Amino acid sequence: MSNSIAHSPSPTTLKIGIVGFGPFAQFLTRTMLKQGHTLRATSRSDHSQLCQHLGISFFRDVSEFLGTINDVILICTSILSLPEVLQSMPLHTLKRPTLFADVLSVKEFPRDVLLRVLPEESDVLCTHPMFGPESGKNGWNDLAFVYEKVRIRDKSTCSSFLRIFESEGCRMLEMSCEEHDKLAARSQFLTHTIGRILSEMEITSTPMNTKSFETLIQLKESSMKDSFDLFSGLFLHNRFATQELTNLELSLGKVKQKLMNGMEEEEN
Amino acid sequence: MSNSIAHSPSPTTLKIGIVGFGPFAQFLTRTMLKQGHTLRATSRSDHSQLCQHLGISFFRDVSEFLGTINDVILICTSILSLPEVLQSMPLHTLKRPTLFADVLSVKEFPRDVLLRVLPEESDVLCTHPMFGPESGKNGWNDLAFVYEKVRIRDKSTCSSFLRIFESEGCRMLEMSCEEHDKLAARSQFLTHTIGRILSEMEITSTPMNTKSFETLIQLKESSMKDSFDLFSGLFLHNRFATQELTNLELSLGKVKQKLMNGMEEEEN
Ligand SMILES: NC(=O)c1ccc[n+]([C@@H]2O[C@H](COP(=O)([O-])OP(=O)(O)OC[C@H]3O[C@@H](n4cnc5c(N)ncnc54)[C@H](OP(=O)(O)O)[C@@H]3O)[C@@H](O)[C@H]2O)c1
Ligand SMILES: NC(=O)c1ccc[n+]([C@@H]2O[C@H](COP(=O)([O-])OP(=O)(O)OC[C@H]3O[C@@H](n4cnc5c(N)ncnc54)[C@H](OP(=O)(O)O)[C@@H]3O)[C@@H](O)[C@H]2O)c1
Repeated sequence: MSNSIAHSPSPTTLKIGIVGFGPFAQFLTRTMLKQGHTLRATSRSDHSQLCQHLGISFFRDVSEFLGTINDVILICTSILSLPEVLQSMPLHTLKRPTLFADVLSVKEFPRDVLLRVLPEESDVLCTHPMFGPESGKNGWNDLAFVYEKVRIRDKSTCSSFLRIFESEGCRMLEMSCEEHDKLAARSQFLTHTIGRILSEMEITSTPMNTKSFETLIQLKESSMKDSFDLFSGLFLHNRFATQELTNLELSLGKVKQKLMNGMEEEEN
Repeated sequence: MSNSIAHSPSPTTLKIGIVGFGPFAQFLTRTMLKQGHTLRATSRSDHSQLCQHLGISFFRDVSEFLGTINDVILICTSILSLPEVLQSMPLHTLKRPTLFADVLSVKEFPRDVLLRVLPEESDVLCTHPMFGPESGKNGWNDLAFVYEKVRIRDKSTCSSFLRIFESEGCRMLEMSCEEHDKLAARSQFLTHTIGRILSEMEITSTPMNTKSFETLIQLKESSMKDSFDLFSGLFLHNRFATQELTNLELSLGKVKQKLMNGMEEEEN
C-alpha cells in the first residue's frame, strides 16, 4: 500500500472508459459514478439503454470509443473473451499513453495478454476486486482488492485509480499476479467448484436445515449467479487450478476410504 | 406439534438420567439445569469431577444408575456405541415404566435398537436436536428439533420432555424416523462430508478470502469439532447416506467434465 495514496489531500476525478459492460462492470459503475468519475463504455452487446439511464455514453463502435479521451481504460470482459476483445480493438490509434487496468478474476493471463497486445507506452495495472454484486451489495468496506503494478510510469493516474477502492475501505493487497493465482486456486476456484457441485446435486432447503447446511445453500445460490464463463475462466486460465481440482477429488476419495474402513470395522 | 404442550400452564420439572456424558450431553445439560430439572448421569469414561462441579450425581456403576428413579432416560452416546451401551445395561431391573428418549443424529437405527432391547412397558421417543455446541451457543431459538413419538403411553411425561426444547424456542418438527434420515442424508451428512473434505485439503485462510470462502473455512472448522465417530455414524447407520456420497462423487465428475469440455472448445 502506497502512503502517497493514503495521505493525498483531495480525490481526483478520472475519465474512465469501460470495455465489457456486463454484470460486474455495472456493479463497479454505481460506485464510480457516486465518486464523480466520468464514465463511457463499449461492449459486445448493446447496453445503450442502461447507459443512457445512468448518464454514460455508450459506444457500439470500438474505434469511436478509443477516440474519446480516457485516463484509464478498464477491461471488464469475461476471462475467456479477453484475447478476442483486445484483438478487435485498433489499439495503436490511441492518441496518448493510457493506463490499462483489468479486473479479471485470474491475473497471470491478462497480464501476459495485455503486455503482448498493448502499445509499449501504455501503463498496465492488473487488479482483482475479491467481491461482487452479492458480497459487495452493502458496501466494499474491509473487502480485499488485489493488484500488481505491472508497468506503471504515470504514478499519479495509477494512484487515483487505486483510490477508488481504497476510499471505499477495501483492504488493498499488492501482490504478484502469480501469487494471486496460487492463492485464488485454493480459495476462490475451490469455492466456485463446490457451489457448482452442490448445484449439480440439486440440494434444496429442508424444514430441518442446520446452520452449516444453510451456508451451503447460500454458497450454491451465489455461485450460480456468476456466469459459467467466469467459472470456466477460473479453471482454464489459472495454471494452479487443475492441481486443486485434483486435490478435491483425492480428498473426497480419502474421506470415502475412511468411511469404508469404518464399515469394515463394524462388520468384524 | 401438540397443542396440549403449547397451552400447558406451568412447566414440570423432570428427573432425567443421562446415558453417555460426552460433549453433546454436557451441552444439553446446561439448559436442562437452568430449567430446574434434576439430572444424573452415567458414562463409559469418568466424568465425576465435571458432574460434581455441575451438582449432578455421576454413577460409574450402571446398575446403581438404573436404581435411581427417573422420569426420562436420555441416551446421548455415540451412534456407533449404542448397541454395546444398551446391552451392558440391566434394563429389566427397572422398577417402573420409564420414557427412553435418544438424541442420536440418525433416527431409524436407535428406533430399531430401542424397540428391540427395551422392556415392552418402556415408552420410546426418538429425537434429533438439529444443533450443537457451536450453532446453539447463543440459545436455541428458531433451531430445529425433530422427533417421532415411537411408543408413547405416558403422554404427560413425553410432553414435559418436549417442552424442554419448545420453551427455548426450537422449531418442533414431528416426522417419521425414516423421513428424518432421508432429509438428513441430503443435508447434514453432506455438510459434514464437505467439511471433512476441506479438512483433508488443508484449506486455510488467505489474506484475500472472499466471503464465500470464509464460510467454507468455518464449515471445515465446525465439522472438525465433532468426533469422527459421529461422522462415521451418520454414514454407517443412515441407509440413505451411501446414495448421497455417490451423488457427490457423480456431481464432482459432472462439474469436472464441463470444465474439460471448455478446455477442448478453447483448443479448437
Ligand atoms: N462477478 C463478480 O463477482 C466478479 C468479481 C471480480 C471480478 N470479476 C471479473 O469481471 C469480469 C466480468 O465479469 P461478469 O460477472 O460481468 O461476467 P462474465 O461472464 O465473466 O463477463 C461478462 C462480460 O464479458 C463480455 N463478453 C463475454 N463474452 C464475450 C465475447 N465473446 N466477446 C465480447 N465480449 C464478451 C460481456 O459482454 P456483453 O455484456 O456485451 O455481452 C460482458 O461484458 C470477468 O473477467 C470476471 O472474472 C467478476
Ligand atoms: N455434537 C452435536 O452437535 C450433536 C448434535 C445432535 C445430536 N448429537 C448426537 O449426540 C450423541 C453424542 O454426540 P457427541 O457430540 O457428544 O459425540 P460422540 O462422539 O458422537 O459421542 C460421545 C459419547 O459417546 C460415548 N461413547 C463413545 N464410544 C463409546 C463406547 N465404545 N462405549 C460407551 N460409550 C461410548 C462417550 O462416552 P464417554 O464420554 O464416557 O467416553 C460420549 O458420551 C451422538 O449420538 C450424536 O449423534 C450430537
